[in-house]
Amino acid sequence: MKNTIGNSLTITLFGESHGKAIGAVIDGMPSGLAVDEKYIASQLSRRRPKDATSTPRQEKDEFSILSGVFEGHTTGTPICITIPNADTHSSDYGKMQYKMRPSHADYTANCRYNGFQDYRGGGHFSGRITAALVAAAALVIPALNKKEIKINTNILNIGGETDKEKMREKILEARQEGDSVGGTLETVVEGMPTGVGEPWFDTVEGMLSHAIFSIPAVKGIEFGLGFNFADKMGSDANDQMYVDGDVVKCYTNNNGGILGGITNGMPIVFRTVIKPTPTIAKEQKTVDISTMSDTTLSASGRHDPCIVHRAAVVVESVTALVIADMLTSKFGTDWLAK
Amino acid sequence: MKNTIGNSLTITLFGESHGKAIGAVIDGMPSGLAVDEKYIASQLSRRRPKDATSTPRQEKDEFSILSGVFEGHTTGTPICITIPNADTHSSDYGKMQYKMRPSHADYTANCRYNGFQDYRGGGHFSGRITAALVAAAALVIPALNKKEIKINTNILNIGGETDKEKMREKILEARQEGDSVGGTLETVVEGMPTGVGEPWFDTVEGMLSHAIFSIPAVKGIEFGLGFNFADKMGSDANDQMYVDGDVVKCYTNNNGGILGGITNGMPIVFRTVIKPTPTIAKEQKTVDISTMSDTTLSASGRHDPCIVHRAAVVVESVTALVIADMLTSKFGTDWLAK
Amino acid sequence: MKNTIGNSLTITLFGESHGKAIGAVIDGMPSGLAVDEKYIASQLSRRRPKDATSTPRQEKDEFSILSGVFEGHTTGTPICITIPNADTHSSDYGKMQYKMRPSHADYTANCRYNGFQDYRGGGHFSGRITAALVAAAALVIPALNKKEIKINTNILNIGGETDKEKMREKILEARQEGDSVGGTLETVVEGMPTGVGEPWFDTVEGMLSHAIFSIPAVKGIEFGLGFNFADKMGSDANDQMYVDGDVVKCYTNNNGGILGGITNGMPIVFRTVIKPTPTIAKEQKTVDISTMSDTTLSASGRHDPCIVHRAAVVVESVTALVIADMLTSKFGTDWLAK
Amino acid sequence: MKNTIGNSLTITLFGESHGKAIGAVIDGMPSGLAVDEKYIASQLSRRRPKDATSTPRQEKDEFSILSGVFEGHTTGTPICITIPNADTHSSDYGKMQYKMRPSHADYTANCRYNGFQDYRGGGHFSGRITAALVAAAALVIPALNKKEIKINTNILNIGGETDKEKMREKILEARQEGDSVGGTLETVVEGMPTGVGEPWFDTVEGMLSHAIFSIPAVKGIEFGLGFNFADKMGSDANDQMYVDGDVVKCYTNNNGGILGGITNGMPIVFRTVIKPTPTIAKEQKTVDISTMSDTTLSASGRHDPCIVHRAAVVVESVTALVIADMLTSKFGTDWLAK
Repeated sequence: MKNTIGNSLTITLFGESHGKAIGAVIDGMPSGLAVDEKYIASQLSRRRPKDATSTPRQEKDEFSILSGVFEGHTTGTPICITIPNADTHSSDYGKMQYKMRPSHADYTANCRYNGFQDYRGGGHFSGRITAALVAAAALVIPALNKKEIKINTNILNIGGETDKEKMREKILEARQEGDSVGGTLETVVEGMPTGVGEPWFDTVEGMLSHAIFSIPAVKGIEFGLGFNFADKMGSDANDQMYVDGDVVKCYTNNNGGILGGITNGMPIVFRTVIKPTPTIAKEQKTVDISTMSDTTLSASGRHDPCIVHRAAVVVESVTALVIADMLTSKFGTDWLAK
Repeated sequence: MKNTIGNSLTITLFGESHGKAIGAVIDGMPSGLAVDEKYIASQLSRRRPKDATSTPRQEKDEFSILSGVFEGHTTGTPICITIPNADTHSSDYGKMQYKMRPSHADYTANCRYNGFQDYRGGGHFSGRITAALVAAAALVIPALNKKEIKINTNILNIGGETDKEKMREKILEARQEGDSVGGTLETVVEGMPTGVGEPWFDTVEGMLSHAIFSIPAVKGIEFGLGFNFADKMGSDANDQMYVDGDVVKCYTNNNGGILGGITNGMPIVFRTVIKPTPTIAKEQKTVDISTMSDTTLSASGRHDPCIVHRAAVVVESVTALVIADMLTSKFGTDWLAK
Repeated sequence: MKNTIGNSLTITLFGESHGKAIGAVIDGMPSGLAVDEKYIASQLSRRRPKDATSTPRQEKDEFSILSGVFEGHTTGTPICITIPNADTHSSDYGKMQYKMRPSHADYTANCRYNGFQDYRGGGHFSGRITAALVAAAALVIPALNKKEIKINTNILNIGGETDKEKMREKILEARQEGDSVGGTLETVVEGMPTGVGEPWFDTVEGMLSHAIFSIPAVKGIEFGLGFNFADKMGSDANDQMYVDGDVVKCYTNNNGGILGGITNGMPIVFRTVIKPTPTIAKEQKTVDISTMSDTTLSASGRHDPCIVHRAAVVVESVTALVIADMLTSKFGTDWLAK
Repeated sequence: MKNTIGNSLTITLFGESHGKAIGAVIDGMPSGLAVDEKYIASQLSRRRPKDATSTPRQEKDEFSILSGVFEGHTTGTPICITIPNADTHSSDYGKMQYKMRPSHADYTANCRYNGFQDYRGGGHFSGRITAALVAAAALVIPALNKKEIKINTNILNIGGETDKEKMREKILEARQEGDSVGGTLETVVEGMPTGVGEPWFDTVEGMLSHAIFSIPAVKGIEFGLGFNFADKMGSDANDQMYVDGDVVKCYTNNNGGILGGITNGMPIVFRTVIKPTPTIAKEQKTVDISTMSDTTLSASGRHDPCIVHRAAVVVESVTALVIADMLTSKFGTDWLAK
């Protein structure tokens, strides 16, 4: 289904970095949810570049809700949100039409779209499209919160550093060198009901990973102990259980709240790795596809030396959309509004 | 869509570990593919437990093709493959109906299915169901191979060991201690055409991970450098490019053959982590849900001290199914048979 | 999605008329529904040919439930039902491999499957496959009935006759002449909750028609007044409304219980037309695709002079599956079992 | 999937009659199709009310393409088209918030959306939304035409009249009486390749009907002879066949180009019935849901005395979208652009 994800609550993305607008259609929303435009704006603001740790491109993200909201509430019909593109320097990219940025999607876009893609600013592959995801998720997060479901993403490390101050230094250092850094995020979902998910194929892990790998630069995801399970003995790794009042709990949460693809009531915990931004000022070897010849590239234009900190709200947003979809599938269309 | 995955070429799984049979329906197959029952049997044999490194449960996996194959070729209509369950010791499990095996799906199954699940041998959550995946994939792998697309999965480590002999020792050691070990697999897909995949949401990473997290015990997946991207500088991590004849190649393959969710012609490379088998003989703290009280459990019955080696063919099989689906979506229904 | 239909509660069909077995996988069933094998058998019996008004082919329809049912109840995992083919006279069909039966699917099957289809007895196009639909629906009908939702299909006319006795005569007459007759069915669903369905695109009409056109020989469907709306004035056709206690009702039901694609609480009413069975003994002009030449065909073998009466239970079954899916989507996975 | 239809080429609708804008997202388009904005405008113009036979509401339908088109061609990424609502007289509807228009979707919308629907002008149920369908289809129709696939819809009758002049009189007469009329449309698709469609469940009939029943006021669809099959003998109804050069043809086309759910190369022929516009000036009995009491309603505001003539282009558009989707599924993503 390409640009649509979700079974009961779906999101369809559209837009290119330097086109008229980007946006999303959210369908399957229950009717009667209060829509808080200030909250949407505040979430978009979390995603926006703020200082020297990010790109100088400044978008106001003045979103517009075209449909599906009436008198401050969701109607239950599809909500189309558009965000116009304003601060576009397309000329920065024009000269890069045929020079493929290494590790970016330029070359694969050209393969996929036979040369017809809007190459300016990464086009449909741009991280800018994630603003639409953030706006869409901002419609469901308040409803999840009301159900005591809380989603939180923290930065574990950036450029190998785990200390906030040092992470910042590392980013500024990379920027100065015309280079970039990556990092790791950890997301925790608290308050999930038990029994959500399926063994085949719509496991919680599978549903989340499917969506989260769309976020540009994500190259890995692990749940609970994740890759650290490889070295553990079963007796050490297993989450032993106990009864707490009328609730079953685990002494540990090595499985990140999911067993057999289904929630067990412990917090969902997963980590995603964000690769270093591929667009860098440093000279790199690449190809010119108009002449099919080798060349080099030193990216000019405005780039992020790091997107890990900006990605946190995006991971939260995608998580919220996936979880809201799974809950709606299980409990019915109107459950989120009850 | 729960037990069905795929857009153009789909697979639907059914069955419980100790029910009459497990099986799969594969739909969207092109007509005219030769069906090699010996190859299916040989793939199933790769999955079967062979010696002391696995469970003593021996299933012949005598599959039966009920439909969709006529005179040795696929008809293009759905293929139902069933594999009867023969060597079931249900009594081993009867006594465990209410004692939840830690880190297994017993408790989440109970939450999801309100106590009506077939609890014997893990029921629908059993690794046994993966035999149906292997059989189904064995229908498409020869067609992929004919297109020069090859899928290979290697064991990187088991119980922390990277040497084959030591891995084996580690498993036998775990077995003797009534314990279990996990490990890591690496899968390489060679020969993929460029331009396969989508930026949102059906990235190659997203499609593969969605399916692969269904394989019991998989808790993480990473592509290319994966979590090692977190410490790298962009200038170091980027895959610089060059022209080789009329083909664009990369000097490195840190992105594992996928950029912007789309194949770039380099091999697809990903790693999956398999957690230690949760069912162990060692005593563990757990709960009895019939009385909602704390208890302990020392699993008897037949268990795998390690499933990493058996999982390799399963990961390959799921990969084949996902890739065949993506190719069919892009190139049309009959492409695989051309 | 080809051989799968449904969003929340899905059915996947497989099988050919003269293959090993036909069957269905039903997924998305709530756990805990009592499974009544006698009821399934009785529904299959309604579909079976009984006397001279139908084909002499006699199938016992001895179905087998391979999965998803445990201790007499649905587990919530996919239910695979298989029905072996027993009374097959494949030789009747062998000689017809290249002679296309007019108005049957022989030629289109050949186009679709490039000559690899199982041509015996109509293969995957055979009305026999509907037995699997009937068996699958027999799992959900009791649950619908418990919710006071009743589905009933009546024969309106056969071969132009509206009187039961005359219908029967007409069929026997057609049989004697080596010919066949069609007819019209009317289906009524009582007890549907209001507010089920969507304006775009999953209208009740759209969902039902999508599924019902799969039943072989159905060539039209109309809801409420249907094609008779064409001659009516709005003032005459509109269903005027009144309040009855705390329920809104209509004086008439010209819209067949659906407005804007959504149920209004009045009975759902629709009619389907079943064309005359295409396989007839009378000589017809046709083509031989092995030689690409004109020829004639007088079908031997066993055929139904009429399938309208046998189709009634099939239409009811498909209706039940569609309605159960829509209710599950709206009210959640477990609603049918509550 | 509610407001999304299609498997490979999908359309997602959004918008309400009196909201900011209506629109559609079209996904799965091949890259490289020329986009002809004048043609889109001309198709929208065919749908627009023109004289006394339609509503006086005049919308310029000044559409905007927000994404997916670059330098005059489709990029292959989702195309979002929006059409702002301009000529809205919301006050006409305000007073009707609680008075349910008989045979309109007012009451079912209220049931479905729990009172949160945008009730103005029919909201998301308005025929106005079909403008987005027409605009979307105008992107693919030129590509279909290039493949020699032509879609044409004719009016068979309006208000019982089959003569063009008398149809017009009938509409004006109805208008004068504060009443409305319905009618029947016939659609013919020429040039379809053979072998398109599936026996279960994605028959051509099922796919078309699923989508076409979304068009407001459609209450029946029949293919080929449709309901007239009921009175025919098989020998009379069957489409006998012959070889014409290297092509198989039928002497008649009673099955409307579809057998076993699959195209046979003859033109696809189907008829749809459009009920009389439910909103009429004549007094009707209805209910006030704010007080749950009986009342009467004489609709003021601007209404169509007939929508049959305006619906023709909508039926063609929906047909184009469904056919383009089925062709894309069969022949691959880029086929339409080849």
